[in-house]
Amino acid sequence: MSINSEMPLPNVVVLGSGNVATALALAIENARAGEIVGIFSRNIENARALASRLSVARAVDSPEDVTESADIYIVSLADDALAPVLARIKPNGALWLHTSGSLDMSVLSHMSDRYGVFYPLQTFSLNREVDLSKVSLFTEGSTPEVEKEIAEFGKKIFKNIIHADSVTRSRMHVAAVFACNFTNYMWSIAHDLLAKNDISFDVLAPLLHETLSKALTMPPREGQTGPARRGDLKIIEAHAASLPPREQEIYRLLSKCIMDDFYGNKE
Amino acid sequence: MSINSEMPLPNVVVLGSGNVATALALAIENARAGEIVGIFSRNIENARALASRLSVARAVDSPEDVTESADIYIVSLADDALAPVLARIKPNGALWLHTSGSLDMSVLSHMSDRYGVFYPLQTFSLNREVDLSKVSLFTEGSTPEVEKEIAEFGKKIFKNIIHADSVTRSRMHVAAVFACNFTNYMWSIAHDLLAKNDISFDVLAPLLHETLSKALTMPPREGQTGPARRGDLKIIEAHAASLPPREQEIYRLLSKCIMDDFYGNKE
Repeated sequence: MSINSEMPLPNVVVLGSGNVATALALAIENARAGEIVGIFSRNIENARALASRLSVARAVDSPEDVTESADIYIVSLADDALAPVLARIKPNGALWLHTSGSLDMSVLSHMSDRYGVFYPLQTFSLNREVDLSKVSLFTEGSTPEVEKEIAEFGKKIFKNIIHADSVTRSRMHVAAVFACNFTNYMWSIAHDLLAKNDISFDVLAPLLHETLSKALTMPPREGQTGPARRGDLKIIEAHAASLPPREQEIYRLLSKCIMDDFYGNKE
Repeated sequence: MSINSEMPLPNVVVLGSGNVATALALAIENARAGEIVGIFSRNIENARALASRLSVARAVDSPEDVTESADIYIVSLADDALAPVLARIKPNGALWLHTSGSLDMSVLSHMSDRYGVFYPLQTFSLNREVDLSKVSLFTEGSTPEVEKEIAEFGKKIFKNIIHADSVTRSRMHVAAVFACNFTNYMWSIAHDLLAKNDISFDVLAPLLHETLSKALTMPPREGQTGPARRGDLKIIEAHAASLPPREQEIYRLLSKCIMDDFYGNKE
């Protein structure tokens, strides 16, 4: 096979410059799944920062300046920005994808006949690289052909391609909020409580690794431990009383829920 | 050095047969830090179950039957059981230790002049082995000599021996409740939400590994992501409305706290 017979890489525009947009743009180029030709952000500095990490992407901050000739548009904008930005871009026949866990696919239906969802189940932060080849991608397409097209594009980048309708994807997203976002917030609180006593969060590392490893080995409910699991009201009260108001409210609510789970009052 | 000149192993009695008692009894024998001669539990079946996993331990369910001649007594009883059980055991000159993160050392002061705390910072479940050589042990002793004696005993089993007074240890324990127990509860909720949709919890594994790995690399607050971090009120409302009452209450409270953290209303 000669070089000329290879399929040319699809030209991709990424709308957004946040955590997900950045991770995807870099991964698409790394995996040679596409060539990023444009980055749109309402903040031109952010658009330029991301474009500078890519090979040929042009940074723009006006929706009217987004090129109309790309093959794939990936929309990774804050929810409240999505509609007003798209209203200023002309519909075309390209493949339009959004990356949200909870938005309906139909928010893109006016941009093209070919649209869908490209939702990576992962937490992304700027300046932290994640190996997407180990991540699951949830997809949905406006037609079976589009669904297949999205899966073909996705599998160059992701480990698992999982078709999920909007309802299933949204439930997946809620579960991920508990499993990742709220968990991380628990760790923030622990970090700050320890910092007040000049104790490094690292001292918890073996505990955190074991907690996760156990939860992936047996159902997390079976591995539940701690004062609330034991129904140890004296210690719960002493802990709660030692905490600032916000942390105290969380401590009391979660302890109550765990006790309800194990000692009755099931809803 | 001949075999005869080796120090004999201390005789150890473990009071309790729960998660911590079981993990410590097994680890003490595995590490050849002591010989477990007795297991006390208010439930004789539980005492026997643990004793059967040890070489020479005798199971008893009456405090009066606890041998008086051991070198070390490790008290790992539920809080409400501790005082009534100890009241029925004669004080002696042995080393008495409790394993609680939050009880004051002084709950053992009437049993001996030599007493202290032996608190492993880890989550234990029956039938799940944990490598204690990677775990930190928090110790406190009734005198500097006793403190040293506890550390000598502990370092045969644990990786780090950290001296901590009762106040510091209790703060450590509260932080661990957030970091381990509440985190595990978030995973229980996610597990159950996914199960309702016939999705395996395992699909979250790469997300959970990355969440933990990130939290140990940068302060967890910096790695916070999700709808609340973005102040995405529409998605928060849609998620909350989709949840059963208890999960909804948790979702709303934690989202509110995260938004307060990032967008003001700091307490």
